[in-house]
Amino acid sequence: MSTILAGMRIVEVSAFIAAPLGGMTLAQLGAEVIRIDPIGGNIDYRRWPLAPSGRSLYWASLNRGKRSIALALNKPEGQEIARALIAAPGPDAGFLLTNLPASGWMSHQALSAARADLIMLRLTGHFDGSAAVDYTVNCASGFPMATGSGEAPVNHVLPAWDIAAGLYLSTGLLAAERQRRRDGQGREVTLALSDVMLASVGNLGYLADVAVNNNVRAPMGNDLYGALGRDFPTSDGRRIMIVAISNRQWRAIGKATGLAERLAMIGPMMDVDLDTEGGRFNARGAIFALLEAWCGKRTLSEIATAFEGSGVLWGPYQDFGQLLSEDPRCSTANPMFAEITQPGAGRILAPGTPLAFTGGDRQPPAPAPALGQDSDAVLAEVLGLSSAAIGKLHDAGIVAGPLSDTAA
Amino acid sequence: MSTILAGMRIVEVSAFIAAPLGGMTLAQLGAEVIRIDPIGGNIDYRRWPLAPSGRSLYWASLNRGKRSIALALNKPEGQEIARALIAAPGPDAGFLLTNLPASGWMSHQALSAARADLIMLRLTGHFDGSAAVDYTVNCASGFPMATGSGEAPVNHVLPAWDIAAGLYLSTGLLAAERQRRRDGQGREVTLALSDVMLASVGNLGYLADVAVNNNVRAPMGNDLYGALGRDFPTSDGRRIMIVAISNRQWRAIGKATGLAERLAMIGPMMDVDLDTEGGRFNARGAIFALLEAWCGKRTLSEIATAFEGSGVLWGPYQDFGQLLSEDPRCSTANPMFAEITQPGAGRILAPGTPLAFTGGDRQPPAPAPALGQDSDAVLAEVLGLSSAAIGKLHDAGIVAGPLSDTAA
Repeated sequence: MSTILAGMRIVEVSAFIAAPLGGMTLAQLGAEVIRIDPIGGNIDYRRWPLAPSGRSLYWASLNRGKRSIALALNKPEGQEIARALIAAPGPDAGFLLTNLPASGWMSHQALSAARADLIMLRLTGHFDGSAAVDYTVNCASGFPMATGSGEAPVNHVLPAWDIAAGLYLSTGLLAAERQRRRDGQGREVTLALSDVMLASVGNLGYLADVAVNNNVRAPMGNDLYGALGRDFPTSDGRRIMIVAISNRQWRAIGKATGLAERLAMIGPMMDVDLDTEGGRFNARGAIFALLEAWCGKRTLSEIATAFEGSGVLWGPYQDFGQLLSEDPRCSTANPMFAEITQPGAGRILAPGTPLAFTGGDRQPPAPAPALGQDSDAVLAEVLGLSSAAIGKLHDAGIVAGPLSDTAA
Repeated sequence: MSTILAGMRIVEVSAFIAAPLGGMTLAQLGAEVIRIDPIGGNIDYRRWPLAPSGRSLYWASLNRGKRSIALALNKPEGQEIARALIAAPGPDAGFLLTNLPASGWMSHQALSAARADLIMLRLTGHFDGSAAVDYTVNCASGFPMATGSGEAPVNHVLPAWDIAAGLYLSTGLLAAERQRRRDGQGREVTLALSDVMLASVGNLGYLADVAVNNNVRAPMGNDLYGALGRDFPTSDGRRIMIVAISNRQWRAIGKATGLAERLAMIGPMMDVDLDTEGGRFNARGAIFALLEAWCGKRTLSEIATAFEGSGVLWGPYQDFGQLLSEDPRCSTANPMFAEITQPGAGRILAPGTPLAFTGGDRQPPAPAPALGQDSDAVLAEVLGLSSAAIGKLHDAGIVAGPLSDTAA
């Protein structure tokens, strides 16, 4: 958490990864982010993995530091309260972040009638508004066909398009807020998940490579394209990645392994200039043969010792368990992390924002709320409702608090 | 391109993907982004893929819409000009984005002596400042060990951590700019590439799953975890991804394929509730058996016809060539794209920003500059240098224009 955005209030009506990550990114920078959910939770509320308590660790991890209010969004009274929260006055309020169908009461037209300068960010599947998720966007991206060894397409497990979309949303909201301070204008900002994929494929040069060179990138296992890098097994059953992009990094490999002279023989042998990325890429088979033999005779810790302070660019492969148990960067030794108590899950290591601002305003990460945990406080603080009025809304089933959440 | 950030001026001293993407993201929103490179180009200037002209399509794709000035950054006079550009006055200037070692003349201390309210964003490898690249961060993330079928770790080809880091940089710069308007304070904002990875692994619930359930996610090929989804071959040698997260999407599959009754038999047969994500995940083997047989008897176009307007969440697998030649979303039919003339590459399809702001301010994408293309204009406009003074700088080898770039 940070305080850089302290004072901003953002309302989120969302589910799954991208939009919640966009909101959490801003919450971790200090904004007050109020997530509105239907009573009982939205479609992502029971998403796996679950804790033994039944609490979704997925939901809890993507909604840290937010406030939660549960409303009967299927009833006009609940929609009216949601609209009032979204349109609440104040120069640092009037923001809605959503990936749900923005029709009816939640359309930009209906909401901007309540607040003309509303900034509404809306994530869709495709630019025409049709539905898509990370998996159905990723299959079309070209990357699964270029991943692995080539027998069949390999989906990456990281929901990379959702993550990028969430961060485009946080960027877009701050850009629109900056402009609103200048022209007073509200805006609807739309972002299509498949456009995030398509823009990224273009930004990385893959489209130009096809258009200009008619070259369709083929799978190369774990080899880097156009530079030197691959994974190598160690003598103790581990695996490491070694990379050289700069000439300095390339020379460091020769020095740290003691293979400099033999690596140098590869230049004339393969007739390439080893002081260029392309030359090293074209001679990688011979280079890999020497490195594979060297790594295969050494344990991970012996290699770590040999590479320590050498300038070699490398890293060990780790599964999620090894990452948490063995990697000091994934511990409270890293100022981004803190141990928090997450209701329904217990003590867990939680990251804050990876952005560190000078001024020492980096705050420890906050847990995710229980569903409806802040319902009463938000109604009182933002809408100025009396406890009597709030009680009536509970009695009428328009608002719910955490007790209605059996799994929290 | 957009005009939402029109008026902002950002200086970038960068290489490779993350920092250039951060700058390009802001340039595509209308900011003036001046990329400073050493004469002859930075370490990424010849990165593959290359056009027949020798021009890097990688560099050209990651630096669209920027201005380029080439300076002798290894000489005090060149460093002095760079410092003057970074510290140039104006409420909408005073921003530096870099992933290069920020020491000596480029340290925050040295630069903030020239402009006290400088906002400097600095990407590092690890939080301790040590070096890393996407590949050496990714191997440690746990994802390669959970990707593919499990014989060996599979690196994803998408540089996902670089992309996320670039978008954290654009978010962080706008957040710091907002706060500077309030408190007048400059800031150094640091972001470690491995922290972006670690935060993402935590945000997605993988760390909590290990800590709470001692569950280390294992590879499952292209199956979704905790929901229904997998890839299926078609009768004409293509492959599609079918996903059902909501019950509505699940029912749409039964309706569109005509398999509803037989799919319903799987509930009692496998003793699961098919109206839950977890139930469908646990019974996925039987569900996949029916869908595999159905898809295997049909061509991609027959399946597309059957799923048209059905509410089924699906997509075809495409390689980068098919993406460009077959997918209408990857064409000028998509308002994000335009055909541009890229010097050294010719006519190419280029994406603008995926963020669409109401107010019709979406501008067509701009090509990348030739190295040093804007050297003279930037010196005149930003520093007010006379053409005589600029000529002297050229004669002294402190500044270079595009003619010195043999590959442009």
